[in-house]
Amino acid sequence: MENFFSEKKVIITGGLGFIGSNLARRLVELGANVTLVDSLIPEYGGNLFNIAGIENRVRINVSDVRDEHSMRYLVQGQDYLFNLAGQTSHMDSMQNPYTDLEINCRAQLSILETCRHYNPKIKIVFASTRQIYGKPDYLPVDEKHLLRPTDVNGVNKMAGEWYHILYNNVYGIRACALRLTNTYGPRMRVKDARQTFLGIWIKLLVEGKPFEVWGGEQLRDFTYVEDAVDALLLAAIKEKANGQIYNLGGSEVISLRELAKLLVKVNSTGEFEVREFPDDRKRIDIGDYYADNSQIHSELGWTPKVKLEEGLIHSLEFYRHYLQDYI
Amino acid sequence: MENFFSEKKVIITGGLGFIGSNLARRLVELGANVTLVDSLIPEYGGNLFNIAGIENRVRINVSDVRDEHSMRYLVQGQDYLFNLAGQTSHMDSMQNPYTDLEINCRAQLSILETCRHYNPKIKIVFASTRQIYGKPDYLPVDEKHLLRPTDVNGVNKMAGEWYHILYNNVYGIRACALRLTNTYGPRMRVKDARQTFLGIWIKLLVEGKPFEVWGGEQLRDFTYVEDAVDALLLAAIKEKANGQIYNLGGSEVISLRELAKLLVKVNSTGEFEVREFPDDRKRIDIGDYYADNSQIHSELGWTPKVKLEEGLIHSLEFYRHYLQDYI
Repeated sequence: MENFFSEKKVIITGGLGFIGSNLARRLVELGANVTLVDSLIPEYGGNLFNIAGIENRVRINVSDVRDEHSMRYLVQGQDYLFNLAGQTSHMDSMQNPYTDLEINCRAQLSILETCRHYNPKIKIVFASTRQIYGKPDYLPVDEKHLLRPTDVNGVNKMAGEWYHILYNNVYGIRACALRLTNTYGPRMRVKDARQTFLGIWIKLLVEGKPFEVWGGEQLRDFTYVEDAVDALLLAAIKEKANGQIYNLGGSEVISLRELAKLLVKVNSTGEFEVREFPDDRKRIDIGDYYADNSQIHSELGWTPKVKLEEGLIHSLEFYRHYLQDYI
Repeated sequence: MENFFSEKKVIITGGLGFIGSNLARRLVELGANVTLVDSLIPEYGGNLFNIAGIENRVRINVSDVRDEHSMRYLVQGQDYLFNLAGQTSHMDSMQNPYTDLEINCRAQLSILETCRHYNPKIKIVFASTRQIYGKPDYLPVDEKHLLRPTDVNGVNKMAGEWYHILYNNVYGIRACALRLTNTYGPRMRVKDARQTFLGIWIKLLVEGKPFEVWGGEQLRDFTYVEDAVDALLLAAIKEKANGQIYNLGGSEVISLRELAKLLVKVNSTGEFEVREFPDDRKRIDIGDYYADNSQIHSELGWTPKVKLEEGLIHSLEFYRHYLQDYI
């Protein structure tokens, strides 16, 4: 991978967001010419502080993936598209299903149509989500598990993922999808739980306030963002990935209550309260989830390297320094 | 079922189409107050001749399911919604993916939002399609089979189906979905293959012209439209169906070549030519498909009653009389 991205032209949608900006940092180190597309909608993950220190080594284009015209211009001449822009809030998707549809379905279709017409040689890596599995029938969940999304966001992300696979299979636009699960780390949104509940936990902990754990007994796995970046890059490089869908995951499975305890431990201090799910949240909860990531391991050679405790330490350290830039 | 629909208010989207109009005829016989919504877009299945003889016993409302305002008015006070309107052409969905998205995704979401706000007690039966399974891993295909749609229409129908299941599960808007497969019979579109290839075969046969069979060896099963109507009515009546998805299917499995022979046999005369798939069609072909319909049999008591030969005889007879009203 060291030389692979040198001088390559790479475009990242959602490039000022959590995962996009961490990916951009890595790609800049690897010598790529990086274009970041982001709408900077305040409710989403984009934040200019995410690229502090590399702002002069990337091209920033503020536009929305729903804007077909800007996307048409921007994808031309690019070698790789990391397609990370999306509406990610489950609750927002229930309250405003049409916005979720426009971003997670229509814009995806339009990006793919644009690639088909103006840059069919591009390779696309799409950020999908484990949310589309719904409540698991069995654990760990592998890619053979049925998709039974429990919210509008899940239905739309499912469609968005399949447009990519379809354009790969029918038109030969090389594309693959990674089903991400609970990605965390520096540059995640922490001002609310729109991106991940871990963000708001860490924010409150750093502020010296108690945080709330809903439920508590649900099992989950977590991917540290640098591991997710590894997976995205591998998926881009490997031709074997074309047309494929891979689960990401973590090496450790933990209940939310134990995670909260671990977080307080590595922070040396802190308090949390375990409470019942609010009603509107309970209706779309999925219970335990953790992924079988053996397929991406065996096919692309990906293994998560960062232990949960280590990842939490890095995350806390980051927000102890930079919290004011995220709230 | 004899008394169940008496005086019930029933609305059918796509009500002037093939399945919608056959369903309307049955519901009128059963004493229901039937409203038919149809856009009468010439490329789709709506045809006023489909309701010849019952036109004074139904209410016809020409409007498009994408028209939120008319739908908002029309669903109010209805007991049942048979949601059959859709873009059905696989090729059209590849050439114009946005139209397919608007009809098969956005309009479905909007119908469900309308029911949620203005008529949450309605029961909805959604017409889904076996197309969303894609190329089968095993045969017969049951409801546990993964969904891997091979065209834009398949992706969008998959999303449309899941919006229904989701609104059932989250909001308690009772809804279920039937995955239809190769429905055929009187009132199907025969002027082209947009709805079913059997339509164009029968048209050419009745006109005394040879018809083309693409491929020939693919296995398929077929549902006669009166059997499909039985399934729709059972799904509406049975509370057990809420939140469920059922395959329909036929009792016989046959290759397209054998089907063509059978059709010529029951017509006493006729010719066909077996040829290779055109390229654009081959890329989205799914090979053999036939359904396991044991779930709807055991849970709702549905069994297809009309044998394939008998169904073909009825269909040919219908178009021998009325072909001019369908071309």
